[in-house]
Amino acid sequence: MAKVKVGVAGYGVIGQRLADGVALQGDMELVGVADVAPTLSVRALRERGMPYAFYTASEDKRAELDACHIPVSGTMEELVKKVDVMLDATSAGVGAKNKELYAKLGKKAIFQGGEKNSVADVFFHGYANYEKGLGAQFLKLTSCNTTGLIRSVDCMDRAFGVEKVAITIIRRVADPGDYHRGLTNALQMDKAPSHQALDLMTILPHIEATGILVHTPVTHGHIITVVMTTKRDVSVAEAVAAFRKHPRIRVVTIAEGFQGNSSFFRYARDLGNPRGDMYEIGLWEDSVVKSGKDLMFAINIPQESVTIPETMDGIRACMGMQKDRIVATDTTNKYLGMGKWKDLA
Amino acid sequence: MAKVKVGVAGYGVIGQRLADGVALQGDMELVGVADVAPTLSVRALRERGMPYAFYTASEDKRAELDACHIPVSGTMEELVKKVDVMLDATSAGVGAKNKELYAKLGKKAIFQGGEKNSVADVFFHGYANYEKGLGAQFLKLTSCNTTGLIRSVDCMDRAFGVEKVAITIIRRVADPGDYHRGLTNALQMDKAPSHQALDLMTILPHIEATGILVHTPVTHGHIITVVMTTKRDVSVAEAVAAFRKHPRIRVVTIAEGFQGNSSFFRYARDLGNPRGDMYEIGLWEDSVVKSGKDLMFAINIPQESVTIPETMDGIRACMGMQKDRIVATDTTNKYLGMGKWKDLA
Amino acid sequence: MAKVKVGVAGYGVIGQRLADGVALQGDMELVGVADVAPTLSVRALRERGMPYAFYTASEDKRAELDACHIPVSGTMEELVKKVDVMLDATSAGVGAKNKELYAKLGKKAIFQGGEKNSVADVFFHGYANYEKGLGAQFLKLTSCNTTGLIRSVDCMDRAFGVEKVAITIIRRVADPGDYHRGLTNALQMDKAPSHQALDLMTILPHIEATGILVHTPVTHGHIITVVMTTKRDVSVAEAVAAFRKHPRIRVVTIAEGFQGNSSFFRYARDLGNPRGDMYEIGLWEDSVVKSGKDLMFAINIPQESVTIPETMDGIRACMGMQKDRIVATDTTNKYLGMGKWKDLA
Amino acid sequence: MAKVKVGVAGYGVIGQRLADGVALQGDMELVGVADVAPTLSVRALRERGMPYAFYTASEDKRAELDACHIPVSGTMEELVKKVDVMLDATSAGVGAKNKELYAKLGKKAIFQGGEKNSVADVFFHGYANYEKGLGAQFLKLTSCNTTGLIRSVDCMDRAFGVEKVAITIIRRVADPGDYHRGLTNALQMDKAPSHQALDLMTILPHIEATGILVHTPVTHGHIITVVMTTKRDVSVAEAVAAFRKHPRIRVVTIAEGFQGNSSFFRYARDLGNPRGDMYEIGLWEDSVVKSGKDLMFAINIPQESVTIPETMDGIRACMGMQKDRIVATDTTNKYLGMGKWKDLA
Repeated sequence: MAKVKVGVAGYGVIGQRLADGVALQGDMELVGVADVAPTLSVRALRERGMPYAFYTASEDKRAELDACHIPVSGTMEELVKKVDVMLDATSAGVGAKNKELYAKLGKKAIFQGGEKNSVADVFFHGYANYEKGLGAQFLKLTSCNTTGLIRSVDCMDRAFGVEKVAITIIRRVADPGDYHRGLTNALQMDKAPSHQALDLMTILPHIEATGILVHTPVTHGHIITVVMTTKRDVSVAEAVAAFRKHPRIRVVTIAEGFQGNSSFFRYARDLGNPRGDMYEIGLWEDSVVKSGKDLMFAINIPQESVTIPETMDGIRACMGMQKDRIVATDTTNKYLGMGKWKDLA
Repeated sequence: MAKVKVGVAGYGVIGQRLADGVALQGDMELVGVADVAPTLSVRALRERGMPYAFYTASEDKRAELDACHIPVSGTMEELVKKVDVMLDATSAGVGAKNKELYAKLGKKAIFQGGEKNSVADVFFHGYANYEKGLGAQFLKLTSCNTTGLIRSVDCMDRAFGVEKVAITIIRRVADPGDYHRGLTNALQMDKAPSHQALDLMTILPHIEATGILVHTPVTHGHIITVVMTTKRDVSVAEAVAAFRKHPRIRVVTIAEGFQGNSSFFRYARDLGNPRGDMYEIGLWEDSVVKSGKDLMFAINIPQESVTIPETMDGIRACMGMQKDRIVATDTTNKYLGMGKWKDLA
Repeated sequence: MAKVKVGVAGYGVIGQRLADGVALQGDMELVGVADVAPTLSVRALRERGMPYAFYTASEDKRAELDACHIPVSGTMEELVKKVDVMLDATSAGVGAKNKELYAKLGKKAIFQGGEKNSVADVFFHGYANYEKGLGAQFLKLTSCNTTGLIRSVDCMDRAFGVEKVAITIIRRVADPGDYHRGLTNALQMDKAPSHQALDLMTILPHIEATGILVHTPVTHGHIITVVMTTKRDVSVAEAVAAFRKHPRIRVVTIAEGFQGNSSFFRYARDLGNPRGDMYEIGLWEDSVVKSGKDLMFAINIPQESVTIPETMDGIRACMGMQKDRIVATDTTNKYLGMGKWKDLA
Repeated sequence: MAKVKVGVAGYGVIGQRLADGVALQGDMELVGVADVAPTLSVRALRERGMPYAFYTASEDKRAELDACHIPVSGTMEELVKKVDVMLDATSAGVGAKNKELYAKLGKKAIFQGGEKNSVADVFFHGYANYEKGLGAQFLKLTSCNTTGLIRSVDCMDRAFGVEKVAITIIRRVADPGDYHRGLTNALQMDKAPSHQALDLMTILPHIEATGILVHTPVTHGHIITVVMTTKRDVSVAEAVAAFRKHPRIRVVTIAEGFQGNSSFFRYARDLGNPRGDMYEIGLWEDSVVKSGKDLMFAINIPQESVTIPETMDGIRACMGMQKDRIVATDTTNKYLGMGKWKDLA
């Protein structure tokens, strides 16, 4: 069967990882990546010897790219013509503009969480609503926090039924290497309810959700605490057992050494994962407690890489590569090497 | 009526503020403060011209104090002999040892949250269980997080009845000027449930509580989110109205400029408050949301100063200065200048 | 003699401290402060009971001020008419616009370091070039880093003669309470040479200066290291003795407890200084070393308050209150309570 | 020719990278690594499928390792018997104890910078004093800051002659994943002169050095500014040209996107370097300025990985694999893939 041809627009934090993710999928072909300027990431692509073909998203900057000796394979329009589906990881707002090009050329596209929901036909999560994405032209992925959160909520919902959740998002404010999004020695509040709670209700409309988001001056992963009302009284052991079975949730303990968000980053580097990335969310077993009949627990969201698997699921859905949710997500997982550690335990 | 005579052991972050708080109480007399070494705080006391008499807690360091020209009024034992009640703000564990001296001399004492509960006859909070402290010899205050949290829970409990709470503590990890308690670019998890939830149940045994604590690399105040099950369905407006009446809760909004924990510190400095301290907890009106029938909200805890009012209440209770909870706390509030801003709104 | 009448434009971090500083000068009268909106600082002014009269810098926001119950004494133009000299601490660029008003009304004004040098007739430092400011209509103060740095360089220059300096500025990136100027887990480089080195050469043209500036994610004070070539070989002891005599330099040691920049903030709070401010720069005695015949040392710059004394000097110069540099700066120091600690040692 | 057999003691931040570095050297064989407990890094080794054989450094913890299913190939003593040279990256002080074992078995060993100089026969730097390490039994590497600093100083010394340097070390205080070495919102001073300046003089005794070290709350690399007196007046262009030729110095500009220390980490991740590591130091071309006849510039030290190349050089020296300094370092560079980017420019 012919491989599905994929392009990536925007070669930044997310775009690079999408390109890497596609390159790992045995049934997809990465045609190329597009960006506007010789950013550090584009310079690194050149120093690596151009493993991915590069297309320019703006002819205006062609001279700047040439001056940096970046080999350019063509324009972004040429890239779009060659692919079946574009993954759009450009800055918020640019995707909506790019959509005109995708529509003109009759191509499918998947947008990241920064775009408005209206950019797409379907607001998508690989585990929670795979079926809705089947055959759609335009998908929008949930944001990093929402993607990871929904993994844990959908897992419990399918196992026990979930009625409502109240979340506290302890948000990392920048990525490693950012200089202009910072906070220094401050915790910053967002007006409640957080958009992640609202987004969760869009994806899982039978669950009520609210939440408070607090920005913190760190770079290695968000932590979310969840207070969850389930349909029946679920024990801590039952909950942990269900989480342990999920291929995209890594259940850990403080005692093992997972002391906080940066432990996951450290561990991923020690594993030799490219870029020190981790595709799984973490879930602390020693955070799971009962609040009356409710459950409470904490998860870790690796913001740079967590949406990659669900985006691969999105390609499978919109291209109709697999009809079945489990078959599709298992295929993504296999190519990304997820869940292998579960055999070790 | 003769003023109650008070001494302070440990002239650090908390001890200094206890001394300042006592000095403001019209019906108390600060006899003196005791510490062991010429710390920066003790040096500052000297540069200020010794507004408080200083006693040495360890004759071994007398030479060191003399070398720094710190005038010493006597030994800590001499200080204890002169007072009715000691406020012990020494490092965790030292208070338990000091208790022997207080007991030997037949004096009352109030310990801070760092000591074990067993050090005291009563685990005390001015608003929640004032009556239990009446006439007791040894009280232990709740810790800073628990003190502030209980203010908000007790407020709602007296207004509407509270059944259970699930809290997320976003803990500041050090005070301004600390160098050795730090975290750098990491969020650190504690095993759940947090001790603050357990302590809340000790003070308010009819309420079920659990919680998760996450340490964050900031210095200006803890933020706690609370998911609260009340006895009846309470609206956001009702909850906010009740919070607004509490003399030790400052209801604010992000729109006014209270963007996060450090806004309270900034505001207290702008107010000209000594040391930039604030005695009230903050509560964000725009954080109050409903989760089904539950309430959710976020509070800010100024860790350096929040326990000062409740410690003043403790002196009133153990010395029997006021029998009534409201009369006692109102007296403390009056002398500390709390709640005056409510008349401005 | 009639007091000099002073107004302050911009009631932010610097403007508040300028107002406090003027209020302390026995030979000046603070007529009022002006700002545009009900910021947290303006709300705090109201909660304090309006110790300073408030004027509105923009009639457009009058309704917003009224809604917050901020008593308004008039427009900024009305304030300017009442004063002899305006201290302009508005955001960078606004001062240049305000200058038109000051010029139209024939008033003197002193701008802060954020404005371009061209805004003023004289680029001013109280100790280094007081005489140049005598009678001038428009002065611009050096920035916080440059003000503190020049204190130390001018001190050595007058004692021993200085030929050149190479500085490394370890810059705090935000003030306590800032949310939008942050850096998170990063050190950020500026292109060399730093403007502070260039500014130093403008004030002290006989000294050659260069430097590198690195932004760091902290809020409590810049640290600058200085490699200084003096006209003759100066011993560490001679240098320290000269620094100790300067009324605006506080010589400290790590052993005393001054472990870093936040120790000065801690100490100022412990001293009971309003807002926890310190007017002196710190100089670590145990940082002073020889590099061949050169000297090397490190100073601490309290960014929020360090320019206040030199601005008071600026009022004295432009109003001709004192003709002599030492008489003028000594008068400022006396009213600000600076240098008193020297009598303790 | 038989490969040199190498073992690593201590599988932490440095030990892991030493193992990776040896595994890349075509003329060396990594026999195994030793550690005491199932740390996160050891757990990661297992999850990776044990690419390196693991030996236990403490039989007491054998049960703990077994409980975590870590395959153990033997004791550390058994590892030492199998190798020609041990790389000791254990915690400070443990190496001195391990030395007894190495001496008993007649093996060579290379210690990291945390040990006292007295642990070794030679204090070693691959570029600066390779010849001294030839045939020695025990070498001690310079620390990460000193290693990177000496690269730049030795480079200039060999090109132009260096008389003295005055350095300011802006030190990162923890590594990513650390929780217990932190600083929060503070810059902390060390007593001057810094040990790095003293160490430089031990390695390069003809150069005078002093310096001041300031700890900063970041994790991604130290920045050092250097004020350097050369034997003759060297222009900025000459200096940059010399730096550009050095295989272990990466000359960059802010304009390219290298805005600070975390840019190097970002770039190394984007390059796909294992663990996101970089072996080169960075040197900002736009930081190089003249201070009279002196030079001033800033370098970036990737603390986790910078000592790996010089340790490989150390193996070559003590085992006599290459007699010539340039041949030896070039061989290390070739196997580590260093300096390849220079052909791109």
